[in-house]
Amino acid sequence: MSLEERQRRGAQVLREMLGVEQAERVRQSWQAICPDFDGYVTEFLAGEIWSRPGLDRRTKSLTTIAALAALGRSLALELNIRFALGNGATRQDIVETLLQIAPYVGFPVTWEGLTLAKKVFGEMDRSTTTSA
Amino acid sequence: MSLEERQRRGAQVLREMLGVEQAERVRQSWQAICPDFDGYVTEFLAGEIWSRPGLDRRTKSLTTIAALAALGRSLALELNIRFALGNGATRQDIVETLLQIAPYVGFPVTWEGLTLAKKVFGEMDRSTTTSA
Amino acid sequence: MSLEERQRRGAQVLREMLGVEQAERVRQSWQAICPDFDGYVTEFLAGEIWSRPGLDRRTKSLTTIAALAALGRSLALELNIRFALGNGATRQDIVETLLQIAPYVGFPVTWEGLTLAKKVFGEMDRSTTTSA
Amino acid sequence: MSLEERQRRGAQVLREMLGVEQAERVRQSWQAICPDFDGYVTEFLAGEIWSRPGLDRRTKSLTTIAALAALGRSLALELNIRFALGNGATRQDIVETLLQIAPYVGFPVTWEGLTLAKKVFGEMDRSTTTSA
Amino acid sequence: MSLEERQRRGAQVLREMLGVEQAERVRQSWQAICPDFDGYVTEFLAGEIWSRPGLDRRTKSLTTIAALAALGRSLALELNIRFALGNGATRQDIVETLLQIAPYVGFPVTWEGLTLAKKVFGEMDRSTTTSA
Amino acid sequence: MSLEERQRRGAQVLREMLGVEQAERVRQSWQAICPDFDGYVTEFLAGEIWSRPGLDRRTKSLTTIAALAALGRSLALELNIRFALGNGATRQDIVETLLQIAPYVGFPVTWEGLTLAKKVFGEMDRSTTTSA
Repeated sequence: MSLEERQRRGAQVLREMLGVEQAERVRQSWQAICPDFDGYVTEFLAGEIWSRPGLDRRTKSLTTIAALAALGRSLALELNIRFALGNGATRQDIVETLLQIAPYVGFPVTWEGLTLAKKVFGEMDRSTTTSA
Repeated sequence: MSLEERQRRGAQVLREMLGVEQAERVRQSWQAICPDFDGYVTEFLAGEIWSRPGLDRRTKSLTTIAALAALGRSLALELNIRFALGNGATRQDIVETLLQIAPYVGFPVTWEGLTLAKKVFGEMDRSTTTSA
Repeated sequence: MSLEERQRRGAQVLREMLGVEQAERVRQSWQAICPDFDGYVTEFLAGEIWSRPGLDRRTKSLTTIAALAALGRSLALELNIRFALGNGATRQDIVETLLQIAPYVGFPVTWEGLTLAKKVFGEMDRSTTTSA
Repeated sequence: MSLEERQRRGAQVLREMLGVEQAERVRQSWQAICPDFDGYVTEFLAGEIWSRPGLDRRTKSLTTIAALAALGRSLALELNIRFALGNGATRQDIVETLLQIAPYVGFPVTWEGLTLAKKVFGEMDRSTTTSA
Repeated sequence: MSLEERQRRGAQVLREMLGVEQAERVRQSWQAICPDFDGYVTEFLAGEIWSRPGLDRRTKSLTTIAALAALGRSLALELNIRFALGNGATRQDIVETLLQIAPYVGFPVTWEGLTLAKKVFGEMDRSTTTSA
Repeated sequence: MSLEERQRRGAQVLREMLGVEQAERVRQSWQAICPDFDGYVTEFLAGEIWSRPGLDRRTKSLTTIAALAALGRSLALELNIRFALGNGATRQDIVETLLQIAPYVGFPVTWEGLTLAKKVFGEMDRSTTTSA
């Protein structure tokens, strides 16, 4: 496989997980801060890692949320909450993941993760209402 | 529910995830360093959090592994690799989880996690051979 | 002891450390993001861990502030700065704790902790003035 | 050397790395939250560590940025991006440092670091335009 | 105060917290890896930060243990468990500190901290028996 | 560029930074725990990130060491200390990098980093003596 094919596959994966419009928006924000960063995320992270067949995307999303919440990486955690919902995880799955890790990484991680998740859920509700 | 019931349920969950003998051994190690610590892990972590019905145990295991690997908590990561195998995760599921988080938390986390997983897998192979 | 008693004890501990009104407000915010999260914090964290007799509450507060500052958990750090003042720690105790850990966890942790502490102190001053 | 000399040297180092006006401003903000904190940063961090002759300041800046980005210390990272530019690092050097650590600490660290760097670069452009 | 006085005061503080023999041994290990590192620890960390009068040494020890355990810094955590006992903290104080932070930073931190504390306690018991 | 070319370039970069024999050994250890992990490190980390022309390899090494030390990733830190020496950094450069980050990430990080660096330096001295 060429890098170009991996890049194309990654761009497609991002659209599938996030919707065409939002995938476009987040990629533009990456382009704006550093075109190569957008390239690496699209090609390697999405086109290679997210494209591995070994685990279903919903499970991948929940494990990624657990790792990002543990390290307090807010920008990527918010994006991955959106990915998770596009990947078939329910809101309850996300909440349960954050509760599951509470005794392992501390309640404050769960508190911050739940706060962020509720914000994302609220934005999605408003956006659905608006576009309806 | 009383605390005693939660405690009993937690002890049972630990035996289901780890096997009777190993559950006994790890709980004795917790008792030896601090009886209350054993109590809290058994009652709250196992009897309450692991007993929540919202997610299946295999998914809980993989999310927990992701969070612990990200933070470099070796003792708990090793134990949760064992839990995961008792909870229906395959060795490949664990390896895939560690690859999935690589671009999110860095390759060194994956390297250390895979090294630990291989050690656990090896010990289980030898223990199976020995007891056969 | 039943879980209900532990829950009641925890609710009382939160009111003692934070004042009735603020304890009510923070618990409502936990209820809003996840009722079970509020339950676990109240029952286990407040009703069990904070209720242990081995250390006085002021010392518990200062150790908790040190740990939360080190990990950069802002929401919980802010709440525990308020707890500390309700638990008999002086403002100077909190500042000294943040200076003590500086060479161990790095000056940036102290900088962020002091900035947050000053914000909390300012809010408390204004709130006292207003209600006077 | 006396502490007073180290203090003076540190104050001078801060002015060299940040410009007289901005050095004054950040030191006032440290004074406002805790005079001793300002003293330690000026004397030990700037007057001793930054004054060591073993590495050039540009290299010191880039290693410091790498460490602070990895740990997510935003206040100090922003300040050190400014230091770096005052120490002869180009904007591209800072971007390359954040890309270099991406596979080691995770893409989210790079994302947050690039976002912060772009904000600082933008503020400096506007400030230059305004003062011209 | 001159740096030399701060250095002398720090050397004295280390001997008071650790005993003359052990203070000598740990300082030699720092000298062996980097003389300037030994200098900074003795002068700044011990001679300045530990010498601040605002908090008693026992409280300083317990807050430092909390911060180091949270970040998983094993070498410094072990040394600070010894400092704590020299500073008037009981073994139970150390255990309680590690239990207090459990829900805030996760049970694995407490597990690793208790394991290390028990090791130190055991070494001290053997050393007492031997030297008696 | 195809993935195969990037893979070849990465393999070459690893040999240049580590020597042919050691590069072979570390790649075999990665193969043994997970062939895809070896593939990703070689192709993406070495063949792409380390191959970027924006910063010289010595500076890249020192920034990577700073980030890995800050996060306590021991396996990767040890490897990158070896990379650094292959990339033209002196032992003193590595020591100075660890001293530079001390006030930013805490003295314990510097202590652990210096301890590891001295171990690597010692192994290299013995290996040189042996092969002479």
